[in-house]
Amino acid sequence: MNCALITVGDEILIGQVTDTNVVWISRQLAGAGVRVGEMVTVPDDASRISRTLDRLMGKYDLIIMTGGLGPTKDDITKQTLADYFGSELVTNPEALDRITRFFKLRGRQMLESNLHQADVPEGCEVLTNEHGTAPGMWFEKEGTILVSLPGVPYEMKQLMEDQVMPRLRRRIRIPYTVHRTVMTQGVPESYLAALLRNWEAELPSCVKLAYLPSPGIVRLRLTVHEPCTEEAEQILKVNIDKLLGIIPEHIFGFDDISLEEALGQLLREQGLTIATAESCTGGNVARMITSVPESSDYFTGSIVAYHNRIKTGILKVDESAVARFGAVSREVAEQMASGVKRIFGTDCAIATTGIAGPGGGTADKPVGTTWIAVAAGERIYSRKFLFGGSRERIITQASCSAIQLLRQLILKMI
Amino acid sequence: MNCALITVGDEILIGQVTDTNVVWISRQLAGAGVRVGEMVTVPDDASRISRTLDRLMGKYDLIIMTGGLGPTKDDITKQTLADYFGSELVTNPEALDRITRFFKLRGRQMLESNLHQADVPEGCEVLTNEHGTAPGMWFEKEGTILVSLPGVPYEMKQLMEDQVMPRLRRRIRIPYTVHRTVMTQGVPESYLAALLRNWEAELPSCVKLAYLPSPGIVRLRLTVHEPCTEEAEQILKVNIDKLLGIIPEHIFGFDDISLEEALGQLLREQGLTIATAESCTGGNVARMITSVPESSDYFTGSIVAYHNRIKTGILKVDESAVARFGAVSREVAEQMASGVKRIFGTDCAIATTGIAGPGGGTADKPVGTTWIAVAAGERIYSRKFLFGGSRERIITQASCSAIQLLRQLILKMI
Repeated sequence: MNCALITVGDEILIGQVTDTNVVWISRQLAGAGVRVGEMVTVPDDASRISRTLDRLMGKYDLIIMTGGLGPTKDDITKQTLADYFGSELVTNPEALDRITRFFKLRGRQMLESNLHQADVPEGCEVLTNEHGTAPGMWFEKEGTILVSLPGVPYEMKQLMEDQVMPRLRRRIRIPYTVHRTVMTQGVPESYLAALLRNWEAELPSCVKLAYLPSPGIVRLRLTVHEPCTEEAEQILKVNIDKLLGIIPEHIFGFDDISLEEALGQLLREQGLTIATAESCTGGNVARMITSVPESSDYFTGSIVAYHNRIKTGILKVDESAVARFGAVSREVAEQMASGVKRIFGTDCAIATTGIAGPGGGTADKPVGTTWIAVAAGERIYSRKFLFGGSRERIITQASCSAIQLLRQLILKMI
Repeated sequence: MNCALITVGDEILIGQVTDTNVVWISRQLAGAGVRVGEMVTVPDDASRISRTLDRLMGKYDLIIMTGGLGPTKDDITKQTLADYFGSELVTNPEALDRITRFFKLRGRQMLESNLHQADVPEGCEVLTNEHGTAPGMWFEKEGTILVSLPGVPYEMKQLMEDQVMPRLRRRIRIPYTVHRTVMTQGVPESYLAALLRNWEAELPSCVKLAYLPSPGIVRLRLTVHEPCTEEAEQILKVNIDKLLGIIPEHIFGFDDISLEEALGQLLREQGLTIATAESCTGGNVARMITSVPESSDYFTGSIVAYHNRIKTGILKVDESAVARFGAVSREVAEQMASGVKRIFGTDCAIATTGIAGPGGGTADKPVGTTWIAVAAGERIYSRKFLFGGSRERIITQASCSAIQLLRQLILKMI
């Protein structure tokens, strides 16, 4: 099954909003063996939407549109679809009932604009929106299924999961395209490619390899298009096992597991607790760790010590160490890690201290210089990094490296 | 000037990577008066890239392509462009020299794959990449400018800023499309639309209004297409002044300023310092505040008190308050705020305690229940919220609301 995605919205075209919906939708579809062949974004403009439909209808088996279904006047997708399919907008009683209850339940006053959200083009199948007031719509014409969904991400996601995917699964055969992603940390893309040159050269021709770099992390995606799922799985397994022999220390997981999830799994398996002491990362390591559900089982807390007096006053870093080596130094990083570990009574700790920029760099310690210390049990390990790029990029790289260093230390000890 | 954006990359189509490049590029172009009429994403596939070029060349004045220029084998954009324009790949001596120096400067060994990055289609203009090894390329044909840039965001950004935008500005007239964005916090989209119904009805017909909701924040974008920039600016000013009279407390700034930047400006103007004490937000408020350059001027630090023993042991919240009212309560939130303010010796503080989910909810305190307390000088204010959606969404909404509450408290006091 071939699919095209259409996003409707001026806000995307003028760069005001990042379109995260298409990523999420594509991932769902890929998992079900539906290949997205094209994504296109068009303005809130009836003629541009219609022309794009003209080009794609009949060419793809499935088109998923998002956006333009809101209660405000700038949202025109629904009327455009009614016109495109030559039908009228009619009130859908179930949708009206649902919207009325939606507002009653929340004790909010219902507005006229919300009432109109129950209107849909005659003849379409209505997809129930559990989290909002704009129903989804399902059309079939010219051999193409056209689905229209609201652009609000959590409403779209519920509609995809509960309504669209089950309907699609009833129609499509079992997928024969198999993806596996190997998650690596600590080696830049071109060095990784050099390390893996021989392995890559020996890959069977049915395996497609892609390097996907992002700050701090490079993903290796292996794809097999095979006539048999089991065979594809076997081909991937053999080649990923080889890869594990070449760069074992840089691989932290598979299939888009995050570093913080990988750390969480390890801490949970080993029954360990953790705290962080952060200077340059400003709470980002704690935020990453706590983004994982039930991280409270192993994460105790953090001290973000932005000012030196918090480093010395709360974390009990020696004032003489700060004076002698500077706040960005091995000594201070290690004392931060052991300080927070002792104060919070945890088994492990992560500490960061560095210069995130854009100001604050010196000849000795340019912007990006970062000391990271990790502690587990009686052991402590620290390392200096020089990260490049913007403030955001430096913070992200430092946070990823810190989590990976702790994982490596724990793995060495067990 | 009309523009289309083409993203090349299987990783986007299978949902592995969010395409943040197009947002950034569109914003730059919108600021220069270039209208993006379409965005399209195609696979790493020569025939699909060529067919898309066939459709768009001659129809748009400008096409900007990103992706597929890396050193690894899956990157085919450069060869495809050479074939499309009927030219050969030739080594560009300046690019080769630059790549050689790039590696020498970093003390890294140069790989053969990196050498090939100096090859470009004959006849194109080479755009110097200061941050990486893949040069950008500028073609002109059939009345269309075609620019090809690497997909790595910071390399793409430097090339756009230093090479592409200056060349474009020499060709295009002063823009007559003017955008202003009003940033609001605390009112959901449809309620905001109801509050602003009369104001919206009275907007001149040349002003286009859009509501752009994201977790915790709704942006109002006003666009004027006018034959004269000054007139457009004046029309916007008058209508935004009216808006400020209707919802003064919900507006925190203009033109995509972030909440954390708005808070930073206020703290800096008033000479105030701040600390945070976070439970359910897990360091996210600290991360937001420290994402702003030079936030160390006013941000002292944070205590992320995920476990209750950190709340009582470090933040000195009364154990009896936790036992009597529970960790998610007004009393605990207020004691966390005053605790961190006293311990860190700051003028202001933010505290959060809530249930981010998906587990941990009860009938009395369902998932999303959050108490936020803010303190400034001798005053303290706290409020209970019930946020909806995923863990990530609840954390984001709680963080935004917390920052906005502190802003409102400080503004009331000055």
